[in-house]
Amino acid sequence: QLDAARFDQRSAGPVATDFRRGSFGDAAEAERARDLADGANFRRARIGVEGKAWGDWNYNILFDFGGSGIEEAGKISSAYLEYAGLKPLRFRVGAFPPNTGFDDGTGVNNLLFLERPAVAELVRGLAGADGRVGAAVLGNGDRWSAQLVVSGNLVTNQTYDEQTGLVGRLTYLPYKSKDSLVHVGGNLNMIISPAATTVDVAPAGATTPVRLRERPEVRVDVTRLVDTGSIDADGVTSMGLELGFQHKALTVQAENFWIDVERRNSLLADPSFGGWYIQGAWTLTGEARRYNTATGGFDPPRVDNPFSRGKGLGVWEIAARFSELDLNYRAGAGGTAPVAGAVRGGEQQIFSLGLNWYPNNNVRFLADYQRVEVDRLSPGGTAFGAGALTPPAGAQVGQDLNIWSIRTQYAF
Amino acid sequence: QLDAARFDQRSAGPVATDFRRGSFGDAAEAERARDLADGANFRRARIGVEGKAWGDWNYNILFDFGGSGIEEAGKISSAYLEYAGLKPLRFRVGAFPPNTGFDDGTGVNNLLFLERPAVAELVRGLAGADGRVGAAVLGNGDRWSAQLVVSGNLVTNQTYDEQTGLVGRLTYLPYKSKDSLVHVGGNLNMIISPAATTVDVAPAGATTPVRLRERPEVRVDVTRLVDTGSIDADGVTSMGLELGFQHKALTVQAENFWIDVERRNSLLADPSFGGWYIQGAWTLTGEARRYNTATGGFDPPRVDNPFSRGKGLGVWEIAARFSELDLNYRAGAGGTAPVAGAVRGGEQQIFSLGLNWYPNNNVRFLADYQRVEVDRLSPGGTAFGAGALTPPAGAQVGQDLNIWSIRTQYAF
Amino acid sequence: QLDAARFDQRSAGPVATDFRRGSFGDAAEAERARDLADGANFRRARIGVEGKAWGDWNYNILFDFGGSGIEEAGKISSAYLEYAGLKPLRFRVGAFPPNTGFDDGTGVNNLLFLERPAVAELVRGLAGADGRVGAAVLGNGDRWSAQLVVSGNLVTNQTYDEQTGLVGRLTYLPYKSKDSLVHVGGNLNMIISPAATTVDVAPAGATTPVRLRERPEVRVDVTRLVDTGSIDADGVTSMGLELGFQHKALTVQAENFWIDVERRNSLLADPSFGGWYIQGAWTLTGEARRYNTATGGFDPPRVDNPFSRGKGLGVWEIAARFSELDLNYRAGAGGTAPVAGAVRGGEQQIFSLGLNWYPNNNVRFLADYQRVEVDRLSPGGTAFGAGALTPPAGAQVGQDLNIWSIRTQYAF
Repeated sequence: QLDAARFDQRSAGPVATDFRRGSFGDAAEAERARDLADGANFRRARIGVEGKAWGDWNYNILFDFGGSGIEEAGKISSAYLEYAGLKPLRFRVGAFPPNTGFDDGTGVNNLLFLERPAVAELVRGLAGADGRVGAAVLGNGDRWSAQLVVSGNLVTNQTYDEQTGLVGRLTYLPYKSKDSLVHVGGNLNMIISPAATTVDVAPAGATTPVRLRERPEVRVDVTRLVDTGSIDADGVTSMGLELGFQHKALTVQAENFWIDVERRNSLLADPSFGGWYIQGAWTLTGEARRYNTATGGFDPPRVDNPFSRGKGLGVWEIAARFSELDLNYRAGAGGTAPVAGAVRGGEQQIFSLGLNWYPNNNVRFLADYQRVEVDRLSPGGTAFGAGALTPPAGAQVGQDLNIWSIRTQYAF
Repeated sequence: QLDAARFDQRSAGPVATDFRRGSFGDAAEAERARDLADGANFRRARIGVEGKAWGDWNYNILFDFGGSGIEEAGKISSAYLEYAGLKPLRFRVGAFPPNTGFDDGTGVNNLLFLERPAVAELVRGLAGADGRVGAAVLGNGDRWSAQLVVSGNLVTNQTYDEQTGLVGRLTYLPYKSKDSLVHVGGNLNMIISPAATTVDVAPAGATTPVRLRERPEVRVDVTRLVDTGSIDADGVTSMGLELGFQHKALTVQAENFWIDVERRNSLLADPSFGGWYIQGAWTLTGEARRYNTATGGFDPPRVDNPFSRGKGLGVWEIAARFSELDLNYRAGAGGTAPVAGAVRGGEQQIFSLGLNWYPNNNVRFLADYQRVEVDRLSPGGTAFGAGALTPPAGAQVGQDLNIWSIRTQYAF
Repeated sequence: QLDAARFDQRSAGPVATDFRRGSFGDAAEAERARDLADGANFRRARIGVEGKAWGDWNYNILFDFGGSGIEEAGKISSAYLEYAGLKPLRFRVGAFPPNTGFDDGTGVNNLLFLERPAVAELVRGLAGADGRVGAAVLGNGDRWSAQLVVSGNLVTNQTYDEQTGLVGRLTYLPYKSKDSLVHVGGNLNMIISPAATTVDVAPAGATTPVRLRERPEVRVDVTRLVDTGSIDADGVTSMGLELGFQHKALTVQAENFWIDVERRNSLLADPSFGGWYIQGAWTLTGEARRYNTATGGFDPPRVDNPFSRGKGLGVWEIAARFSELDLNYRAGAGGTAPVAGAVRGGEQQIFSLGLNWYPNNNVRFLADYQRVEVDRLSPGGTAFGAGALTPPAGAQVGQDLNIWSIRTQYAF
């Protein structure tokens, strides 16, 4: 039939399965250190379809059966409809992950390490992430990409009035040659109106708390070592600045984020947080990572010599990263009680080394080492245990640990 | 291979994704009015396969990841095996939605409004609905369709002894010409033995309650405004009468339902309820809706001029509906306590207007307006709040509201 | 593209749906007999993909939406990556069911009865079963198969430190002719380190309980009639001996298991349990079951004359089985309290008859009759009811019952 020729059904994929085994150690440093569990976890296990129909319409539906720490029942990861008839713009509605920053421009199957930098992951969770419902305008050229998304809640996450958010991103390549490029970009992630946790009744209105927190950069165990706790808020604004560089087999990228929370019905000072990271990759076998102009991010190199019966080596790559996430606001000195309005969320620094092997374009093995250092003062109260276990206000509740982890991934 | 030619594997679909955003308003009229939450919701997100094998065998397996109000983890929507070797009959066993009435003859991806009329949806839930396990005999000719189903519980819904139900439907076209037709039909939906909620121990036997209740005709919020509460029952019988008419681009259909509940171990009178609706559609662009002889219902028109780069308009359609659902039995006058055996489930009237755009045969946009009026007396007690909030017996607990909603749908 | 020719994507399957309706009776014999619920249940409803890529790599991803007694939300059934470049060995990592014994060598869509023998199912659950995460080395020739698996937890089943297990199996055909064969084999299933249910804090360490229990050989109702209760343990070891025989349309297979539990931090004697079964099948229409050399088990016969419009009969098969599972350890005499270290898990004997119809290679109907006899003494306490309902220590809490069940299955 003639109509069939207009459909572009790209296989039955994408399907990705990540399989991790992480070994946590050195957890004894701080007396109150939490016991992170060894184990294995399916991070993502996806099935779905995508394609084009009727010339100008794109569709995508993708279900995920993986999870963080514990695998979850299958849920909607993305399901959207896109109209691309007005070039270079595309209009999209449904559930999809908005492009929240430089490292989010790299797809979930193409990450350099097992997880994104902690601060980038935290910002991604504000108004983006997989399964975010929203409406978007997207566009890109050879040297630029732009995106504006009005987003709502995540699917399977709705009780009272839903969250409204905004995600914007703009990237540009000021320099581009055959072997090299320079990337600059800016991103904005806002929670305009946080999700309500109570009925909206005058005069107090609905409680709309936000909570900023993040795991170390692995998800076999779900413990979060830095956490602001709930802050009743009118909104959150994150601004990010991106800088990237590539020369042949070497890529370097860095981002800094400024995060401001606006309190609701409160005379206390509005707290502000932040974080940054720098990461680099170098391909031992010489292939260059590919810059994706549509998403403004680095994708892995193509495998020119697939490993098979000893004929090729595949691609071997090494990577390093330093990331910092600071969720303290007026934290004060050790041993003292927090001042009014202070947030003792903690400061987390992670140094990571990675070795990646791509035997072919579908299979990847990642091995990561992380050195995690968390510096955090107890706000007092029972946040870290009740009764005799309660650490007094101002006690150090941070902990240092090493993490070794590997990932086996199959995607097509 | 020769065998392969006998398989008719229709793509990997059907896959349908509905995306809604509803705005609820005017909820302040009644003091006890419930606060329905604004939001978006994936109503259906499906993936599966269907096909023919070995000539006479049809199979279908379909999983749904959507839900009402809150998206659910993926579950079985239908999974059945059908033997069609004895024409015109088909024998089916497994999970599938029995055809419970005129509006159920229209498939879930083809509905005229976002949801079916409240009374039709309520009757559909007795012994039918997606994921109902059962065995069926089906048949149809050019002018008739017939169906008899013995059904059990819904999948994922089983504790003690399961429900046994019966669904029968018979339709006929007394008049049929090139441009016009008249449809008459009758349907029967019975709960023969309601699902038990306790162990079956003599002499009292197992408690087998039924509860009739329904949402306004949108499901972004799950609140039900009419509700009989639990009635310990031996069975429920619903009889429906169907009438339909089509002339070119105009279709009109109406149904009336009589619903009787037989109490268990009780001297109180057996309550009876009812409801009806009438709805019409007119295609602005002139295409005619298609009558489906296999299911005895109206499907949307085929899109002859798909919308693409401004060449075609697609199909534009307007629709109107009035529906009533009466769950009162001997409700009595306002301000009085209910008499023995009375059921104050409430009476709901909804007037709906719809505008539908079909840019092509896969994509649909629906915009609906509803005026909902609920008249309901409090049975007293704590059904509507405890302590000082308790409305006294006989107080008005109904509420009026307007609903605007849109749906984006992709299906193939 | 040339690469595409190297992919062997076997349809979108396998998809299997089982539909059962079981009628339980004779439950009144013992006063404390539990009321098993009649009903229907989707045992398995699966969707997924499998295939080969890049010559030496196999992949498989399969999701299951069925369950035992109550259908479950979709979850990962298997998802693995396999390297087969070093013949005759294959290396596999991910989630998959390790081959735990003779009856596990028969695939889930090919079982002779609705369920495996109770003892085989219990042993399969130790360190195997669907959704088990692990790493394996597999190999086979024309007359032998071998397998070694280091396994962890099931997916969606992780809290504290995960279980570590080991599964090994070795099979051989000492005699093989055109019409006949003799199978011998041995299998080892170990829990090396049971999953922790508490934090691992010195000096007591984490509690690591194991619990051996099993349903009658049908799963419409989830009640388990034999059950050891939780035993805090350092590990479990099961050894199995397999014996099989085929001559044309007749197959017979038998297995015996020795199960030892090693208590943790206890001076009590380590309990040991056991079980065995023998089952046979005879094809009325004469076709022979097929021996699968890769998995070391019997698969159903191929259907040479498919049933269609009365031309063929398909394959008709009868089967019989006796199985015993003994979870008693020093149970003592009736009417007495248990001695220290005794385990009154009960002894279950099941005699089964089956009639199977395979109208074609995709569709199966199974009808089973079971006579279940459970002999079990109450350990006292409140395990079987509180207050006046408590059976005194040493009372008979077993029960006898008959089960009739049918399965409708479609798989490809």
